[in-house]
Amino acid sequence: MYFMFSNRISDVPKSFIREILKVSADPSIISFAGGLPNRDLFPVENIKDATNKVFDIVGPDVLQYSNSEGYKGLREQIAKRYKSFYGIDVSTKNILITNGSQQGLDLLGKIFLNEGDSVAIEEPGYLGAIQAFGVYKANFLPVTVSEGGMDVEELKSVLQNNEPKMIYTVPNFQNPSGITYTNENRKDVAEVLKGSGVYLIEDNPYAELRFSGSNKKSFMEFLPEHTILLGTVSKTIVPSFRLGWIVAPDIVMEKLLVAKQAADLHTNYFCQRIVDQFLIDYSLDEHIEKIKKMYLSKKQNMVNAIKKYFPEEIEFTDPEGGMFLWVTLPKGISSMDLFDMAIKKNVAFVPGDPFYTNKTGVNTFRLNYTNSDADTIDKGIKILSECIRDIL
Amino acid sequence: MYFMFSNRISDVPKSFIREILKVSADPSIISFAGGLPNRDLFPVENIKDATNKVFDIVGPDVLQYSNSEGYKGLREQIAKRYKSFYGIDVSTKNILITNGSQQGLDLLGKIFLNEGDSVAIEEPGYLGAIQAFGVYKANFLPVTVSEGGMDVEELKSVLQNNEPKMIYTVPNFQNPSGITYTNENRKDVAEVLKGSGVYLIEDNPYAELRFSGSNKKSFMEFLPEHTILLGTVSKTIVPSFRLGWIVAPDIVMEKLLVAKQAADLHTNYFCQRIVDQFLIDYSLDEHIEKIKKMYLSKKQNMVNAIKKYFPEEIEFTDPEGGMFLWVTLPKGISSMDLFDMAIKKNVAFVPGDPFYTNKTGVNTFRLNYTNSDADTIDKGIKILSECIRDIL
Repeated sequence: MYFMFSNRISDVPKSFIREILKVSADPSIISFAGGLPNRDLFPVENIKDATNKVFDIVGPDVLQYSNSEGYKGLREQIAKRYKSFYGIDVSTKNILITNGSQQGLDLLGKIFLNEGDSVAIEEPGYLGAIQAFGVYKANFLPVTVSEGGMDVEELKSVLQNNEPKMIYTVPNFQNPSGITYTNENRKDVAEVLKGSGVYLIEDNPYAELRFSGSNKKSFMEFLPEHTILLGTVSKTIVPSFRLGWIVAPDIVMEKLLVAKQAADLHTNYFCQRIVDQFLIDYSLDEHIEKIKKMYLSKKQNMVNAIKKYFPEEIEFTDPEGGMFLWVTLPKGISSMDLFDMAIKKNVAFVPGDPFYTNKTGVNTFRLNYTNSDADTIDKGIKILSECIRDIL
Repeated sequence: MYFMFSNRISDVPKSFIREILKVSADPSIISFAGGLPNRDLFPVENIKDATNKVFDIVGPDVLQYSNSEGYKGLREQIAKRYKSFYGIDVSTKNILITNGSQQGLDLLGKIFLNEGDSVAIEEPGYLGAIQAFGVYKANFLPVTVSEGGMDVEELKSVLQNNEPKMIYTVPNFQNPSGITYTNENRKDVAEVLKGSGVYLIEDNPYAELRFSGSNKKSFMEFLPEHTILLGTVSKTIVPSFRLGWIVAPDIVMEKLLVAKQAADLHTNYFCQRIVDQFLIDYSLDEHIEKIKKMYLSKKQNMVNAIKKYFPEEIEFTDPEGGMFLWVTLPKGISSMDLFDMAIKKNVAFVPGDPFYTNKTGVNTFRLNYTNSDADTIDKGIKILSECIRDIL
């Protein structure tokens, strides 16, 4: 008797980050590891009111099966938001509601990737995308991102040697690094992609959480036929509802719909109606203002603590929004070794390794600042600085 | 410039059944096509109460990200139900909550199927499974089911010629045919599979909707190491929440978890808590009694109308539960041709073709009886009988 798994799942290692999150769930650990929105900011009372209103307005049908595309009212509101936030025209028919934006990544992997097909991806890049495309046995082509955006010369050279199906980007307050592409960088990246057969994925969970500086343009402006947008309410309204979406051209939408139906028929209709009602009855802008105020203050706490405690040679990003900052140790120092030291002193973070598609022992790591209070941030960064001094 | 899709999605045709459902959404159409639970039976007030209680008890955390496995309290209740309904022991750790049981099928396809791997499947078989495994380019090995269950000799011959990764079954009130495997048939099927490397998928959305006769055994009793169970609350409590689950052995669960995380991180936590609270506060048995009473009456309406109007030579199943019955026309008559005639007279059903993995123009079709009232059933069956007489 033997049971055999598919190639696509056999080589996938146990997720290191899940192991870290398990360790850091221990309440005695100071955790900068996770990427959780702060629970104190969830609009619980408003969501509760919206829920009861939905029961009253929609009645039993809110519990019935629904369509694969998603609730039209919600999709219309999403389209309006793209117009007001980015000034771009997105048609309701090109929006597919997904079970979190992670499902968007899975569906894109499913409809585009044959085994060994290439995906260009930011380095460091978002772990969830590496996992989703990795399951479809993607060949990753990393392109360096650093302050200001993607390395355009590297991108050119990657495209010269290989025709990737997609290029994956988080251009605003990137996970893991917190960096944002400048408008000029976006334009340059778009210039390189023009005329190619490469879809650009603009994964954009954090753009609305901007504390300072000015909003940047969507790639949709520069590359309308090539751009696929991913969005979510998880960072701005509620994570547990698992509501995300994909915006894609007609030809892609048709394939996505087939894949969505085979994957899970449709996304939770009840919660789509609740979020729609919440957006009708309350001001999303006012709600986001509260989040931005708190996250800015926490980010400043962390930056101040880093400046106070870390040795001077340690580099770090000071993001204008989002949930993470990124630390770079001197060359040759492994953040994985640092993690082993720090966790013994009850401080957790995510070492850089899982955000690189084929590097290990890197000298970078990710810190989350949204989910700890000021004192904890100060205390944790202090302990971390001691570990860094020990390892230097 | 060219964009290319993956092989797995390029050949998937537009879903015929979705087209039918679009047509039959027209209110002037009498539709026996869909598979919708009856909306009048949704426990709206109880779900509303459970929802408000969850807000009060759990607070903001009910809106936070959660774990990939699913809410432990709900998984414990599911395990208890397996014990009380089937008398089988299912460990909470072997239950993964999914976005509907359709996602269970997708995850199983993902972790088991390389392109061209074989899947044995009931013929006729559930369309959602054909779609989910079809996307992973499964090679389907059909095994005939008819009154009483699966053709065991055919199964033996299929296994002799080919080693499928899985065999997919809906042993209770099958979709599309409404048939149920006898206990003897289950035992015989299990005997054939013993010692093989084939996982048996027991997809079981309807077992609790039994109007008459006695509950049958789970394959888990006969084949504990080989059996993977799929379950859902969509047919018994609420479809729009998209809550299903997979029960699988440890070794499979480990791979499913990796795949689940890459697919969508986790299933809607808010709705998991609501269903858990509903199950704590209200009697599921009492609720299901109401469903059974109504569905039995509707099934009898349909059976009576068929007996009254259809020509005598037409065969049909008279299921002891579930939502569908299955009609067999004389050999050589195409139910697809019948569909074209019936839809012109504003009556819709699902022709058999999509439920067969490589046959067309078959002489069978599916009727749903749960979603029309008695008069509509009588009227629709009468019109259908006229079409049948015309085509004979």
